[in-house]
Amino acid sequence: MSTDPTPAAAPTPKGLLLKADPIAAIFQDEVKTTLASRGSSSLRPRLVGILSTSSEPSKMYAEFTRKQCEALGVDFVLKKTGAALEGGKGFAEGEGVEEAIMEANEDPSVDGIMVYFPIFGPRQDQYLQQLVSPYKDVEGLHVKFHFNLYHNIRFISPESLAAPSSSSGSTTTENDQPPPGTVKSIIPCTPLAIVKCLEHVGVYNKILPYGDRAYGKTVCVVNRSEVVGRPLAALLANDGARVFSVDIDSIQEYTKRPSSTETPSRKYYPSHVVRPTNNLTLEDCLVLSDVVISAVPKDDYKIKTAWLKDGCVCVNVAAEKNFEKDVREKASLYIPAVGKVTILMLLRNLLRLQQYRNLA
Amino acid sequence: MSTDPTPAAAPTPKGLLLKADPIAAIFQDEVKTTLASRGSSSLRPRLVGILSTSSEPSKMYAEFTRKQCEALGVDFVLKKTGAALEGGKGFAEGEGVEEAIMEANEDPSVDGIMVYFPIFGPRQDQYLQQLVSPYKDVEGLHVKFHFNLYHNIRFISPESLAAPSSSSGSTTTENDQPPPGTVKSIIPCTPLAIVKCLEHVGVYNKILPYGDRAYGKTVCVVNRSEVVGRPLAALLANDGARVFSVDIDSIQEYTKRPSSTETPSRKYYPSHVVRPTNNLTLEDCLVLSDVVISAVPKDDYKIKTAWLKDGCVCVNVAAEKNFEKDVREKASLYIPAVGKVTILMLLRNLLRLQQYRNLA
Repeated sequence: MSTDPTPAAAPTPKGLLLKADPIAAIFQDEVKTTLASRGSSSLRPRLVGILSTSSEPSKMYAEFTRKQCEALGVDFVLKKTGAALEGGKGFAEGEGVEEAIMEANEDPSVDGIMVYFPIFGPRQDQYLQQLVSPYKDVEGLHVKFHFNLYHNIRFISPESLAAPSSSSGSTTTENDQPPPGTVKSIIPCTPLAIVKCLEHVGVYNKILPYGDRAYGKTVCVVNRSEVVGRPLAALLANDGARVFSVDIDSIQEYTKRPSSTETPSRKYYPSHVVRPTNNLTLEDCLVLSDVVISAVPKDDYKIKTAWLKDGCVCVNVAAEKNFEKDVREKASLYIPAVGKVTILMLLRNLLRLQQYRNLA
Repeated sequence: MSTDPTPAAAPTPKGLLLKADPIAAIFQDEVKTTLASRGSSSLRPRLVGILSTSSEPSKMYAEFTRKQCEALGVDFVLKKTGAALEGGKGFAEGEGVEEAIMEANEDPSVDGIMVYFPIFGPRQDQYLQQLVSPYKDVEGLHVKFHFNLYHNIRFISPESLAAPSSSSGSTTTENDQPPPGTVKSIIPCTPLAIVKCLEHVGVYNKILPYGDRAYGKTVCVVNRSEVVGRPLAALLANDGARVFSVDIDSIQEYTKRPSSTETPSRKYYPSHVVRPTNNLTLEDCLVLSDVVISAVPKDDYKIKTAWLKDGCVCVNVAAEKNFEKDVREKASLYIPAVGKVTILMLLRNLLRLQQYRNLA
């Protein structure tokens, strides 16, 4: 038996760590350019942030919003209610948040409303999200916008935001420009920010036709909330990807609906198909996935590096770290956070909604 | 030591078992009378039921809806999609439900839409509930109607249902009659059915002024969903009760907001106040509660009879039995199910909405 130790294997080439700053910078420039092009006579857009809990991450995010707004020439007003009030002992978490929303809805000087969630939990928070006027919903959380996303309705008339339920609009996939008389629908901020990150790192292939640029890619989205995971899975499927949507109790597969089935009588079918994947485990999905996106708000939730496909792209969306420390032993690229891009998507929506309200 | 056994205690007087049939019968008469008063020339109201899962309880409830409608002179059309389709192998649970909703929204011959939930789970189901036009929302699940309930806005203009967010209406608590030009807001079916049961059994005191008829009563509501528990707690608090709202992770206290704080600048404050009850356990709440209402969709969830206040009123709302078999050893009155009243509330809403759509 030889006593010579086997020579240590050459260190595994580590994947790239990509922070969101350079991606955010692109959209900072875009927002600045848009504001500059409007000229000095136009009103500065005004964003109201509503903070009604004592949550430290929410306070930090509010402070971060303020800095971003100030840097870009956007007015930011922070309204505190409930437990967020200075010296607010005796106020419950969330007390007064509905009123702050309704007042901001009615205030003509307010262009956008951002509420710092979570407040009460997913279901009651979903109720609150529907109270924000679609004309001021910079986060894109109103059912109208989700409906448009699920049905790949990209362009809408500004007036339609005042109607009770969305049922019309146009699905143009040849390019990204609104037909005359229409404007772009608002896309929920966080899913949009993730797509922008994926575009930036080349997961979206610009050589492919618009609306099919994620074709050929398999993506695993861990989380199926109404705010992040489900709209994201639909967006990616709309763009041609095969998506595994993973929730605590099931895994579904989202794919683009074949255009041959889009007969006129099926005008309200979502533009993606959802199928159960009864026999697949998370491990089965991960080994197939070119991209893994995780948004699980739990400290102890970790995706095993061992299960990842070699060379995949990993994106962590949660405030917690959902990937193990050695994720870059397998991932070719790891984006640890997307919040800086999300806030820019929100400001881009703000600029758009300010215009839509004037057009309506 | 004596070997004589202690004599058995006299059997505890058992509380009353009250099935919902006699309460439902009152509203069957009301619906019949309303339809008869409209005369033979008016169109029969038409309800569309949308069944898109293979769930047996949903199928049974759909069959039950059909029988009630036929007995009362209401057209009922059952639309099946997804896994509910005959021979629907290969269709997923819920497939096609959005499209069925949108088509029923647009069909002028349809007066009301009822979707058999649960389909996808609470959050995605909440999205679906917002797609139903408020003019056809017989279940009263649209955010508009919840907003009105939380703010005790009882009367609205029929046109306001077309606006994107509710922010106006009148709160009249002196009687139950809409001021000229307004109609009654729609109240979510299940919470309303429960209140009707409580009125029937005298928990609501008719000697007290309208809007304060539950004053003096302490009610424990076990469940804080957006569909049942939270609106019910608010309804009861609006009517003067002290309500403990019990959820899996917290207990809150709902009480009527004192009218002295209702200054004009606070027009959007909910008409009830919610406070955390940090130190109370379920046992603490039950011993104080004159009425216990439970809606926990779990087979193994049971409220301990030993914890109940002697002589209380118990109402089981879940499909499962949330009370122990011996509940009437403590409860003076036990209502084991409210579904038969719920369906009548839905038909009452149908008749109203048929009118509102004509007025708008």
